[in-house]
Amino acid sequence: MAEVVAIRRDEPEGLVWKSREGKVLRVTLANRPANALSLEMMATLQQALDEARDDKGVRVVVIAAVPGKVFCAGHDLKQMTAGRNAPDKGEAFFEETFAACSVLMQSIVRHPKPIIAEVDGIATAAGCQLVASCDLAIASQRSTFGVNGIDVGLFCTTPGVALARGMKRKHAMEMLLTGEMVDAATAREFGIVNRVVPEEYLTQVVNKYAQVIAAKSPQAVAFGKKAFYDQVEMGLEDAYAYAGRVMVDNLLARDAEEGISAFISKRKPIWTEE
Amino acid sequence: MAEVVAIRRDEPEGLVWKSREGKVLRVTLANRPANALSLEMMATLQQALDEARDDKGVRVVVIAAVPGKVFCAGHDLKQMTAGRNAPDKGEAFFEETFAACSVLMQSIVRHPKPIIAEVDGIATAAGCQLVASCDLAIASQRSTFGVNGIDVGLFCTTPGVALARGMKRKHAMEMLLTGEMVDAATAREFGIVNRVVPEEYLTQVVNKYAQVIAAKSPQAVAFGKKAFYDQVEMGLEDAYAYAGRVMVDNLLARDAEEGISAFISKRKPIWTEE
Amino acid sequence: MAEVVAIRRDEPEGLVWKSREGKVLRVTLANRPANALSLEMMATLQQALDEARDDKGVRVVVIAAVPGKVFCAGHDLKQMTAGRNAPDKGEAFFEETFAACSVLMQSIVRHPKPIIAEVDGIATAAGCQLVASCDLAIASQRSTFGVNGIDVGLFCTTPGVALARGMKRKHAMEMLLTGEMVDAATAREFGIVNRVVPEEYLTQVVNKYAQVIAAKSPQAVAFGKKAFYDQVEMGLEDAYAYAGRVMVDNLLARDAEEGISAFISKRKPIWTEE
Repeated sequence: MAEVVAIRRDEPEGLVWKSREGKVLRVTLANRPANALSLEMMATLQQALDEARDDKGVRVVVIAAVPGKVFCAGHDLKQMTAGRNAPDKGEAFFEETFAACSVLMQSIVRHPKPIIAEVDGIATAAGCQLVASCDLAIASQRSTFGVNGIDVGLFCTTPGVALARGMKRKHAMEMLLTGEMVDAATAREFGIVNRVVPEEYLTQVVNKYAQVIAAKSPQAVAFGKKAFYDQVEMGLEDAYAYAGRVMVDNLLARDAEEGISAFISKRKPIWTEE
Repeated sequence: MAEVVAIRRDEPEGLVWKSREGKVLRVTLANRPANALSLEMMATLQQALDEARDDKGVRVVVIAAVPGKVFCAGHDLKQMTAGRNAPDKGEAFFEETFAACSVLMQSIVRHPKPIIAEVDGIATAAGCQLVASCDLAIASQRSTFGVNGIDVGLFCTTPGVALARGMKRKHAMEMLLTGEMVDAATAREFGIVNRVVPEEYLTQVVNKYAQVIAAKSPQAVAFGKKAFYDQVEMGLEDAYAYAGRVMVDNLLARDAEEGISAFISKRKPIWTEE
Repeated sequence: MAEVVAIRRDEPEGLVWKSREGKVLRVTLANRPANALSLEMMATLQQALDEARDDKGVRVVVIAAVPGKVFCAGHDLKQMTAGRNAPDKGEAFFEETFAACSVLMQSIVRHPKPIIAEVDGIATAAGCQLVASCDLAIASQRSTFGVNGIDVGLFCTTPGVALARGMKRKHAMEMLLTGEMVDAATAREFGIVNRVVPEEYLTQVVNKYAQVIAAKSPQAVAFGKKAFYDQVEMGLEDAYAYAGRVMVDNLLARDAEEGISAFISKRKPIWTEE
């Protein structure tokens, strides 16, 4: 972690870079070299997500990282260790850290706009949780994934919340108990990522997904993403009662009328700008 | 969807055809060309399932479709659009549609008899939900699956209820957000179908599964299917308390005594006719 | 099941053999030939697990079986049939059996120490449930898995509790309704086992996993295993609130301080003996 990093003069500043291509916001983690989720990093990423929520020009968010070996290595262990010097031995600092992290991860799930992780490199602990928390994730072939807190005596319990909801239990427990890294193909098999591509095509493939989704009705996407994560926590009967109501509301909203009418007339729909 | 369909004179009439082979009821969707789930279609299918529930001669139900490109294309968008002409802009009609659809899908899950989807062709939106809702599904190699409501501004929220309970979240979100079709092999990997076979063997393989299950004790199957979907919604402790009670009831019922006795005596069991 | 088994004079006695290699306890099912889970067998296995819970020298438990065709064939059908001679036709006996079995399976999940199934042979009904209940499972290539109670009129409802929480629903229903055996590769695909290896390497691979996990902080493992199975039953918000608190407690415990400090200093951590 002592790797020296040369920052090029023409690069943006800050812990998180933002760039736009059409309706797609790209958020690049730039807390080099490990893109650790320090308090400052989490606050900056949270702010970027909060702004994207209210920005009508943004329909999809991509979370990427600056080129390097690491996509995101999780929490900042040096910052945590420094926190132990407080009279409470760090308790308040640790609480602040995990509260911020849990809010951040839930912001991704609760965000009205789809969020895609673009992973090229190592994603460990809360970095792996970040990938698991996104709606979709695409990884380069050389990427690796792990929840290795157990190696330092700190079981990755909060990352386990995200893992357990997206993969089989035995796969999650294997990763959590052994702390071992899995390669990108295994991460795809386990359900951490949707797709694995050669690194030279990664951004291109991610942008393709993002543009496909950005071309959908933002109204319908917002209805649907929220309802998906809400209903999945309900029993079947409640889920259907709730989801049925959402379908009716979605149908009564302008874009479904436009979309279905366009489909029947074989023309291209024009969505409401959010 | 304007494809002209020649109906052969010797074909049955109605939106849903029923046929029997031994204890297996075959229900064939015949609302051509797309087997759309119009209100009439859903009512007819619902009636077929309700009758099968009370018919002691039926032990397994197969849901298939008339030969053609489409297994089931989901709701009838033209009927929905016509519904918008009402003073309430269709709200009551949409409510009726999704209430009927959700009852239908839950009838499959709550049906005391196993229901197998036999898919040869395109299954989209509520058609894909129908496949996902069945206990088992076998598809031909040329079948394709998608939840593409998002393309017309209507997120497939109710299909998402069935998908989310049978596959990984990232796979479900990829299908729901992009609206893209997946081939049969991918549908198998994702968990929408159990098995993929060449089209010329599809019915044969489905019948094999159906006959295997029809040869089991209907009493035990009814105990077990209900309990499976009930316990899966509970916490582990409650699930075990409940499932343990069901095991005791199953053991005290006639067929388990007969079945275990037959096993020990190395003879063939004779099940109670339901 | 009438196979004659020669017991070698130098073998341990009892229904369950225990042996230790370092911090790993190996529990070997030895109720030959089928290692059936009779009341006595369940009580003996339960006692072994309970002792391991309180034994500070044990960090990981392996559940294996004596060499033979069968890993574990589930409940003892002859014992169950004998139970029917009671005035209540066996009800109290069946209740006792499933109460003991459900406690046993939950003891594995709730055990503070990771439990690994080492499967070489046939695992059916409650035997398959036993494998599914372990945190990890490694199987030999010749192993097979099934929940075939349905063949004797007794749907594997309690095994279904363990299966449903670790694999896709359609896979679970296929196994439960057909009673058919799946091979080891399929069991791996379905999520019943983590890994399949040639039989001659099975114990070696299991020991490798066990030693890797035994080298972690037992304190952190205990925090994490309990929290994993607790949070997975909660909604997302509650899960994060709970898991965040566990992370703080884990950080304030001695081993996380030692582990993180050792990591930063690039030295080997020394864990608290449990």
